[in-house]
Amino acid sequence: MPTNMISKVLEKAVLPLDVAPPVKKGPASRTSVRRNPNMERLQNGYLFPEISMRREAHEKKYPDAKVISLGIGDTTQPIPSIVTSAMAEYSLALSTPEGYQGYGPEQGQKSLRKAIADVVYPNMGIRDTEVFISDGAQCDIARLQMMFGRDVTIAVQDPTFPGYVDNGVIMGQTGPAAVDEESGGSRYAGIEYMRCAPENAFFPDLSRVRRTDVIFFCSPNNPTGHAASRDQLRQLVDFARRNGSIVVFDSAYASYVSGDDKPRSIYEVPGAREVAIEISSFSKFAGFTGVRLGWAVVPDELLYADGTRVARDFDRVVTTCFNGASSVAQAGGLACLATEEGRAAVARVVAGYKENARVLVDTFQALGKEVYGGDDSPYVWVRLFPGRRSWDVFAEILEKTHVITVPGSGFGPGGEGFVRVSAFNSRDRVVEACARLTSFLA
Amino acid sequence: MPTNMISKVLEKAVLPLDVAPPVKKGPASRTSVRRNPNMERLQNGYLFPEISMRREAHEKKYPDAKVISLGIGDTTQPIPSIVTSAMAEYSLALSTPEGYQGYGPEQGQKSLRKAIADVVYPNMGIRDTEVFISDGAQCDIARLQMMFGRDVTIAVQDPTFPGYVDNGVIMGQTGPAAVDEESGGSRYAGIEYMRCAPENAFFPDLSRVRRTDVIFFCSPNNPTGHAASRDQLRQLVDFARRNGSIVVFDSAYASYVSGDDKPRSIYEVPGAREVAIEISSFSKFAGFTGVRLGWAVVPDELLYADGTRVARDFDRVVTTCFNGASSVAQAGGLACLATEEGRAAVARVVAGYKENARVLVDTFQALGKEVYGGDDSPYVWVRLFPGRRSWDVFAEILEKTHVITVPGSGFGPGGEGFVRVSAFNSRDRVVEACARLTSFLA
Repeated sequence: MPTNMISKVLEKAVLPLDVAPPVKKGPASRTSVRRNPNMERLQNGYLFPEISMRREAHEKKYPDAKVISLGIGDTTQPIPSIVTSAMAEYSLALSTPEGYQGYGPEQGQKSLRKAIADVVYPNMGIRDTEVFISDGAQCDIARLQMMFGRDVTIAVQDPTFPGYVDNGVIMGQTGPAAVDEESGGSRYAGIEYMRCAPENAFFPDLSRVRRTDVIFFCSPNNPTGHAASRDQLRQLVDFARRNGSIVVFDSAYASYVSGDDKPRSIYEVPGAREVAIEISSFSKFAGFTGVRLGWAVVPDELLYADGTRVARDFDRVVTTCFNGASSVAQAGGLACLATEEGRAAVARVVAGYKENARVLVDTFQALGKEVYGGDDSPYVWVRLFPGRRSWDVFAEILEKTHVITVPGSGFGPGGEGFVRVSAFNSRDRVVEACARLTSFLA
Repeated sequence: MPTNMISKVLEKAVLPLDVAPPVKKGPASRTSVRRNPNMERLQNGYLFPEISMRREAHEKKYPDAKVISLGIGDTTQPIPSIVTSAMAEYSLALSTPEGYQGYGPEQGQKSLRKAIADVVYPNMGIRDTEVFISDGAQCDIARLQMMFGRDVTIAVQDPTFPGYVDNGVIMGQTGPAAVDEESGGSRYAGIEYMRCAPENAFFPDLSRVRRTDVIFFCSPNNPTGHAASRDQLRQLVDFARRNGSIVVFDSAYASYVSGDDKPRSIYEVPGAREVAIEISSFSKFAGFTGVRLGWAVVPDELLYADGTRVARDFDRVVTTCFNGASSVAQAGGLACLATEEGRAAVARVVAGYKENARVLVDTFQALGKEVYGGDDSPYVWVRLFPGRRSWDVFAEILEKTHVITVPGSGFGPGGEGFVRVSAFNSRDRVVEACARLTSFLA
């Protein structure tokens, strides 16, 4: 394939202009550049922009309705002032000769890398040099997929956050999409979809999962809200070790986990350092969805088949395709972690969202609905009308209650029939949404 | 090739675990995942980290030396307080219910998009919806290359900023690298290198340039400091139109252009909307190298051969692989543009760097050296010792004067023999560096 490809590239490149100027077809204004077939292969719009558009249309139809969004997982509550003061102070200092800083290290400020290693990964043997600061987990997914390239095979939970698959499609890791008749959702050839459903307690039967190079695993899961147990993560790590696979563990919701029996990091599991990358974020942990800050951990022991350290290639991607997270955001991130006061302040916001999730779960349970999640995550996963498609359920809930949810099939065919309800809102609005849902559904 | 690839992907994916567990070679801790051959193909370290390492080694050797960096193009002067106050105010408001904002639009705040369209592109017909806010031009290069994919051919100026080529290599657009015997630099098969040298007044002879799908063109150029004239950019646009190519015009240094005969944007040239994307940045314009903010303009009229709007695919990449620039940085960016006071304040900082560049050019001219750039850019491009390699010149200057420059060959084989000297520093340090250079070189 490489030889093939090179000759193709060369053939295109050495075609002299004066011999064969390219013929333009169609309107004169078109270029002759072929659209990337991987972009062409992407199905539908990205889920959340699609929901935005439907919301806009709804607000046009009902200009007086008070729409409540329990849709996109977007934080709504103010950031503790200990954090924003640090950002403000850092910003103002940029106007002084002493406080001005230009480019920071592409991998992030040493102090922040160290705070994450110490506070988020205590006693897990994570070194600050293994922590790469980023502008969010979604961006790290894109960079990891760029690093892995087109020749890897991937597995994802079904349902799951769509970013893993979409970035894989853009990189050319997949075959074409086929519409899943049952759900109306798309499945791409070449991807291993690991069904996570009530039937298997939201953890895949690994004895039936085919080996892939990379396994994307999100726990607590978005959208189902299920946090894998210690035993389940041990199975996952063992599976990856047996198969020589790399796990990309997305712990963006780790701060929502209750109790000690469910790990908040894959590195709580012995042997994970040799098979797992972890990506995480300040977005849902500290309300940084707009501020943009996250991180990836790539342990030194993680090696490709040829013995190359994966961290070496990731470092190259970070320095070449990225230039570090905003220094102001990093100052805020440090304030979340560096003091007991900061840690307590952000934990209080998370606790508030968790209480919202409790209100939602109680409401759906009182209505006799089949409901999951909420204990270890800001997401509640509910089957409101058994047998009906999730986009229809989404549309009916919006029409009748002016409440935005997210159709489960947007997270993969395995999400069909469910909607995801987010706890990210003020208590008042969540309570009001529950009242509307109750009067409609009771 | 697609069929080939799909069958390969499927073959890997459907191999059941129980039939043929992959055999692991070497130490038990290696995964079986093959390293991305494109990552393997990347030559050397990234230029600036390499220079950092050499600086560290130098400071160990001479712990008392006062090293002056005229190396990496990193701003050093404080950001005007009208800008940092806006960031501080925005940050503090995030702690209030009224001021809190979560995810913004992935494409950026409407107000900022509009300010850029109005202030940076007056009378050029650029609409706010065509402006995509980003975390910097380097990151946009990566996203554009992801969007174009592996099957496009590219042309770059030689010398030029290394990001265009490196991101192309990661995407698999190139063949293997061959070391250029003369310069010791690498050239990748499949890339069209457009030599920009004193001999052709730093503008390529387009009649000898082969047709490629994409042409990366940086003006004012990094590293040579040359700003293309209106006539030259007209030639470039005509060349792209004739060939059905897309120009990616990097105008990160546009604010350094003197006089009106050199366009600050490609859209000053008639017909550019149908062939050109423009990327730019607040980094060198407002000292935002650490704050991280930039933008890309993708006009609606720019079409792939099949008629698809390029902006449609770029929007998909921005929503899927990125999640918007930090909202705090965007508040700062708006303050740079929204008022006359803000615009004047950032212009004063640029004027200071330009005066530094003048001091550098005067110094090299007084020494009788062959020197270019500086008039329209913060970079001065100088041949200090004709016939000697630029890494050797870099090393000698560092050894004898403790001044960091950038070896020209780091920007491509065409940069061999030169070093780039940056005007990004305080006046005092630039003057001190000039004194040291004069006593060494005179």
